[in-house]
Amino acid sequence: MNDTTGQQDLFADPDEKMSDAKEKAPKERAPKSENAESMAKRQREISVSEFFTKNRHLLGFDSPRKALLTAVKEAVDNSLDACEEARILPDIKVTIRKLGDTDKQYTMIVEDNGPGIVKAQVPNVFGRLLYGSKFHRLRQSRGQQGIGISAAGMYGLLTTGRPVIVRSKAGKRAIPLEFEIRIDTAKNRPEAKDRVIEWDKDHGTSVQIDMEGEYRRGQRSVEEFLKLMAVANPHVNLTFTDPDGNVTEYVRGTKELPKEVEEIKPHPHGVELGILLKMIQESDNRTVSAFLQQDFSRVGPGVAKEICAKADVKPESNPRRLDTATVQRLKGAIDKTKIMSPPLSCIAPIGEQLIIAGLKKEVEADFYVATSRKPVVYRGHPFAIEVGIAYGKPGDTLQITDAGKIVEVSTGPKNQELLMGNADDPVRLIRFANRVPLVFQQSACAISKAVINTNWKNYGLQQPRGALPIGPMVIFVHIASVWVPFTSESKEAIASYDEILEELRLALMDSGRKLGTHVRKGKKLASEFKKRNYITMYIPHVVEALKEILVLDDKATATATENLTTVLEKSRKL
Amino acid sequence: MNDTTGQQDLFADPDEKMSDAKEKAPKERAPKSENAESMAKRQREISVSEFFTKNRHLLGFDSPRKALLTAVKEAVDNSLDACEEARILPDIKVTIRKLGDTDKQYTMIVEDNGPGIVKAQVPNVFGRLLYGSKFHRLRQSRGQQGIGISAAGMYGLLTTGRPVIVRSKAGKRAIPLEFEIRIDTAKNRPEAKDRVIEWDKDHGTSVQIDMEGEYRRGQRSVEEFLKLMAVANPHVNLTFTDPDGNVTEYVRGTKELPKEVEEIKPHPHGVELGILLKMIQESDNRTVSAFLQQDFSRVGPGVAKEICAKADVKPESNPRRLDTATVQRLKGAIDKTKIMSPPLSCIAPIGEQLIIAGLKKEVEADFYVATSRKPVVYRGHPFAIEVGIAYGKPGDTLQITDAGKIVEVSTGPKNQELLMGNADDPVRLIRFANRVPLVFQQSACAISKAVINTNWKNYGLQQPRGALPIGPMVIFVHIASVWVPFTSESKEAIASYDEILEELRLALMDSGRKLGTHVRKGKKLASEFKKRNYITMYIPHVVEALKEILVLDDKATATATENLTTVLEKSRKL
Repeated sequence: MNDTTGQQDLFADPDEKMSDAKEKAPKERAPKSENAESMAKRQREISVSEFFTKNRHLLGFDSPRKALLTAVKEAVDNSLDACEEARILPDIKVTIRKLGDTDKQYTMIVEDNGPGIVKAQVPNVFGRLLYGSKFHRLRQSRGQQGIGISAAGMYGLLTTGRPVIVRSKAGKRAIPLEFEIRIDTAKNRPEAKDRVIEWDKDHGTSVQIDMEGEYRRGQRSVEEFLKLMAVANPHVNLTFTDPDGNVTEYVRGTKELPKEVEEIKPHPHGVELGILLKMIQESDNRTVSAFLQQDFSRVGPGVAKEICAKADVKPESNPRRLDTATVQRLKGAIDKTKIMSPPLSCIAPIGEQLIIAGLKKEVEADFYVATSRKPVVYRGHPFAIEVGIAYGKPGDTLQITDAGKIVEVSTGPKNQELLMGNADDPVRLIRFANRVPLVFQQSACAISKAVINTNWKNYGLQQPRGALPIGPMVIFVHIASVWVPFTSESKEAIASYDEILEELRLALMDSGRKLGTHVRKGKKLASEFKKRNYITMYIPHVVEALKEILVLDDKATATATENLTTVLEKSRKL
Repeated sequence: MNDTTGQQDLFADPDEKMSDAKEKAPKERAPKSENAESMAKRQREISVSEFFTKNRHLLGFDSPRKALLTAVKEAVDNSLDACEEARILPDIKVTIRKLGDTDKQYTMIVEDNGPGIVKAQVPNVFGRLLYGSKFHRLRQSRGQQGIGISAAGMYGLLTTGRPVIVRSKAGKRAIPLEFEIRIDTAKNRPEAKDRVIEWDKDHGTSVQIDMEGEYRRGQRSVEEFLKLMAVANPHVNLTFTDPDGNVTEYVRGTKELPKEVEEIKPHPHGVELGILLKMIQESDNRTVSAFLQQDFSRVGPGVAKEICAKADVKPESNPRRLDTATVQRLKGAIDKTKIMSPPLSCIAPIGEQLIIAGLKKEVEADFYVATSRKPVVYRGHPFAIEVGIAYGKPGDTLQITDAGKIVEVSTGPKNQELLMGNADDPVRLIRFANRVPLVFQQSACAISKAVINTNWKNYGLQQPRGALPIGPMVIFVHIASVWVPFTSESKEAIASYDEILEELRLALMDSGRKLGTHVRKGKKLASEFKKRNYITMYIPHVVEALKEILVLDDKATATATENLTTVLEKSRKL
């Protein structure tokens, strides 16, 4: 077992002087080539920009194709967040055009009619990672990390050497400005210059990034992303100009903005010991009771008293004087006390009617259904799960629908191949977090797991083991939360928290049941139709036989046929 | 299509005053509740510690069970890196014990005989994220981000409120010190105090972290991680004390340290435009030719001249005076110039013999094989792929081995259920990056994809479609690189770069072929043995018949039997 075979030498490189490992292998354990002092000299800070430059696949910039889509996504997210916060109905223009002659570099421009950004903040927002207004607030927004758009700019600079161009007009009377921003990755700080421009706009922001990219159509394309964005954001007007100059317009289906979300305080049940210790240190409140009531949501005098009693802490004691052991007791007491769920004003689900409206706008189907679950909580964060289903390809799969007078004739699908597959294909699953489509990493996502774990056979669909069900169907799933737990900074998949999986399960079951009724009705219709066809086919023969036996004239034969048909149809309850 | 159905109200919470979204929906697009100024006030910096506190699942601290393993991994990685850099044969002691009465909190202690850490650096190394010596150096090491151990300490503080305890002695004559370190997450800076202690040790470091955790055995446990660590690091002595006080020792199988790795300069083919622009700005060299030769590896006067000619840049021009367009030409010229591969002294693969030694030490099998590919390059970074295979469960599956005198009798497996499965199970895949076992996210890893995409049926194994092959086998795969492209900060899976997938494919095929020869030989042996059994079974009857026909006496019968057996065995070439 003590095999001391020599290490194989893989490095016989002709022009390199070999340092023989065997020679250097120590006889005793005294440091030789390096020691603590020499090693200390190399210790240094790593800027977050340097980190993400080297690890840019973590942010969604791992391939030219994905980079283009990620940049569009980050810019559109910011535009929509800003518009909604300022209660402006969003008009967004996305333009992608070739940069130079090759098809390896592109310019992306995203322009909005939002509130604009004040001069002092523009360089930081676009030229600094981990900077923003959304990270520390407990309320739903698309962006949450303060990384995305600056990372897109950093990627552009890295691949083309060109700065980010930002135009901003922060209100009707504000002076429109144009900025040229380069991120200094060693410091994670912007280098910016600005100038006054003419801009015929009341207010708004535009961001322009030159970058290495690859433009494609079809699945996981900018095109598809924007279509999905339109499904989940029916209040948005989106205009997309592609590199060939083709313009696609997504017209809003409602003038109603999403409900305004309010910032909430942390809920006691979501707080960890370390956070509690920190909150106590930073609190202005002089008694434990006041601290509990003022710094958390859902703690009134009664609950505060109960917690203190359980923790054996005097409500009027100074929170800053508590030692760690006492705070630990306080934490234990909080966990054992029943406290009302956090206020739900911090999130704004889409709602069943608007989910259906959004689906109808972009996917033509026979049947639509939606479920919007009441918000609940994971780790103290409110979240709500919503599901929508569009089923059946009109004029294609469910031929039954235009048979006889049973169901109205549908006009067939229009250019919707992006979302609805064929009857033999797996259903299309479209995933959303805070109204943003999730395009990549489907298999790693809690949403996919929940859809696969749902037994769709119960609802009349085929489903291979461990896979999505089969059928002409789009499943829309949305999670709205103050803090969406993504599996990576690129925000492509949802982490599998138990509470989230459970809500997904219930929402999918609810929509599934409604779907099942429709599918079964469809199957019954199909089966009845088949039987009715038999009736239609055999009645003439039966009547012919009756005619011969009873010696009927033509009129009597016609009457007999009609009566027989009516009787048989009635008996089938059609 | 313009469905303006009202948004469903999910927030009818009795004790909340409802702000009616409909009322607030704007008639025109003027900002109402927020504008650019009010929004600007909330913009602020997010510290990297705050970011990772909220996103700690990105670092591998998403569940108590995983947290304990991640912390051990980060501490052991650091210990081994430090020992090897100081050319010390590592002796590592890992201890996990319960903290208090419950089984929800644990203390982890990892102690090494490394060079120690100088006083001024200890607080930064253990109390600051993105701080370290490895990120900026192009050479192989286990750690590369400067996040891991500080993140473990941050998690400990968050869940128990207790500081990290570090002991360090930086050399024989140094004074041993003990530190108490708490990370200030708002600033990403350490708060530390230290005191002189007695420590009967020449030099070394110990880190102790109290944390919420869950201790389990079996797959994806600390136990398994350390066993795997011993496989890929046969030069390490590891002692593990579990919470029940059981001690497991992994004794080193070689006294040879891994080859010492050297830092290299970046290779021109791996550099992107943005990096090139930055390197030019930061260079001390006054001519383009000198810049190319001094700041990159593998560029001599000839190559520099060739690049300059292709880029239409004078070799003696001042690099700082080049505009972006010219640098872009320079980049294009670099990409079109043939340049020798980067020096490989920066990485230290394990080598075929030591892979087999490591496997033999921890997995008992019938057959071992290994392949260590020559290092190559992705994105300018040298990397090498190595594969090892341990096949066949002695005394269990391949009964043929102890049948007759054909093969030596094996003594059967010893307590190795952690690594070797049964004959009907999928093979066990063990993945390593820079000698560190990768325990989680197997399915998302390039290594798994390459193993699944290899056609193991060619090598005599069963393999279900799209899955690992079946059999009593352990596949060891190692990537050694100056920069391992992990799919997340928690360093659990390798990103699927084409160059890496290709090297994996070739290495797996090479080991697979050697395995195939053995498996087929085994199958042939099995089949021959079966035939030989028939011979043994039928010869007496044949001889009996001959005896009757030829009227042989007993002696003649015995001779006939012997001759017949010899003839038949010879004809079968056994």
